[in-house]
Amino acid sequence: MDMQKRIERALETAIKHATAGNQPPKIAKALRYAVFPGGARVRPRLCLAVAMACGDDHPEASDAAAVAIELLHCASLVHDDMPCFDNADIRRGKPAVHSAFSEPLALLAGDALIIAAFETIARQCVGTPHLIAPLTGTVAKAVGMPHGLVAGQAWESEDEIPLVEYHRAKTASLFTGATMAGAIAAGADPQTWRAMGDALGAAYQVADDLRDFAANEAEIGKPCGQDDANGRPNAVAAGGLDATIARLHDLVGRTVAAVPDCPGAPMLRDLIAGEAKRLMPESLASRAA
Amino acid sequence: MDMQKRIERALETAIKHATAGNQPPKIAKALRYAVFPGGARVRPRLCLAVAMACGDDHPEASDAAAVAIELLHCASLVHDDMPCFDNADIRRGKPAVHSAFSEPLALLAGDALIIAAFETIARQCVGTPHLIAPLTGTVAKAVGMPHGLVAGQAWESEDEIPLVEYHRAKTASLFTGATMAGAIAAGADPQTWRAMGDALGAAYQVADDLRDFAANEAEIGKPCGQDDANGRPNAVAAGGLDATIARLHDLVGRTVAAVPDCPGAPMLRDLIAGEAKRLMPESLASRAA
Repeated sequence: MDMQKRIERALETAIKHATAGNQPPKIAKALRYAVFPGGARVRPRLCLAVAMACGDDHPEASDAAAVAIELLHCASLVHDDMPCFDNADIRRGKPAVHSAFSEPLALLAGDALIIAAFETIARQCVGTPHLIAPLTGTVAKAVGMPHGLVAGQAWESEDEIPLVEYHRAKTASLFTGATMAGAIAAGADPQTWRAMGDALGAAYQVADDLRDFAANEAEIGKPCGQDDANGRPNAVAAGGLDATIARLHDLVGRTVAAVPDCPGAPMLRDLIAGEAKRLMPESLASRAA
Repeated sequence: MDMQKRIERALETAIKHATAGNQPPKIAKALRYAVFPGGARVRPRLCLAVAMACGDDHPEASDAAAVAIELLHCASLVHDDMPCFDNADIRRGKPAVHSAFSEPLALLAGDALIIAAFETIARQCVGTPHLIAPLTGTVAKAVGMPHGLVAGQAWESEDEIPLVEYHRAKTASLFTGATMAGAIAAGADPQTWRAMGDALGAAYQVADDLRDFAANEAEIGKPCGQDDANGRPNAVAAGGLDATIARLHDLVGRTVAAVPDCPGAPMLRDLIAGEAKRLMPESLASRAA
């Protein structure tokens, strides 16, 4: 099956479980709205691609890992966009969950998605119970305290923000988690995959800074200039446009180089190359070439 | 070891993991603040008491279940109190997390506690991997969609609130989950324990309504009259004071009657009787006698 279809189908199953009976109706609708239609699904694609590169020995576990990663990503977007946080009204080109529904429902929908992520791993891995602890631990580490996504966002409340740790926690950790969870799901050693996840995650953060700085709203489906507006560190603001573009190319090269030897390595390298192209704002593509 | 000490020690371990290195410092402080000092710890005590009544065959699993239940409860309090939800400034007799820290940190702290709950189960049950899926599933069901705590709170955003389902989801589900998780952790059949959890959960909801209606702030550590202020269903408002007191007594009786035959049954019945006394507002105790 096509990877994208496989991800959408697995997400659909998870959301069906969470919204069985469509009660309460508003939050059931909000959960679906927060997950469908998705963005590029880059994290679950990464997770699944690594699992497939490792042989995909336990497809249900691979799907569960990919779904958990994406549900947690969606939850973070819903909570991030809330007025008390980034106060962003637009996400993926449509009103953010709190704008389309309400603040209480956005708060609850984010919570429900986090819970559903872990529930999915436990439910889908009945045939591979030995994978539940490492998958849960890896995914939780990627999003939780003290070094995951939540920690990354929490650095924004500090007076002094250590840039490397901040970016690693806020963005790279979920890429590392997606990569390692994909390996775990296929019965491979996650440690040999860590470097690739780290490099791709760092690339993605640099690309995100570039897009925030240099793209336009129509291109990325959300307002630009948010880092500046929120007084947050941004690689372009700190190092200049050309140096940042060069850094992105360097990180993409490192990611490709870090793909461990395995039957699926060429497929993975292709996926990374495609991703790198997608990440570069159109307005900068010629400059970057 | 004394049950209360055991719970505090297990919670301390979980919070130490989440705040290792105390970075980022503010959220690390907020997580600890949200969990310590606790309230009555009634849900984890229930969980542990059931596990002990069933023989407590896997103490680490029992502790993990109790901790997960309490962290999820604390998370719900932190998010509930936020301005976009109940807008309550006082909790457990001190400023709520969003007042003591900030709204973004309260949002993130709640998320981190939810994540830590599931991480704790996976981490603590390395010796009993077969328990991770049922514990995670039971706990997730108790707090998530479509019938757990989050669903209960989401009913408050609907025009029509089905009172029984609302109360069951919002309050009773976590008691049922605590009871069943305690049984699972000890290797017992959780289904035989469901009725007791349901009855105690219903009793607790009625008691909560009574306290909201008839106690004073000093007695319960948070403002009273919130149901009325927020336009929410309240058993006393709906059925009158005497009928509600009678219903609480009836539910406590049902809880005691639902304790399955086991070596720890007398201990459990004592715990329930003590709990029932604690739940009744002082100002009503004579009326209830």
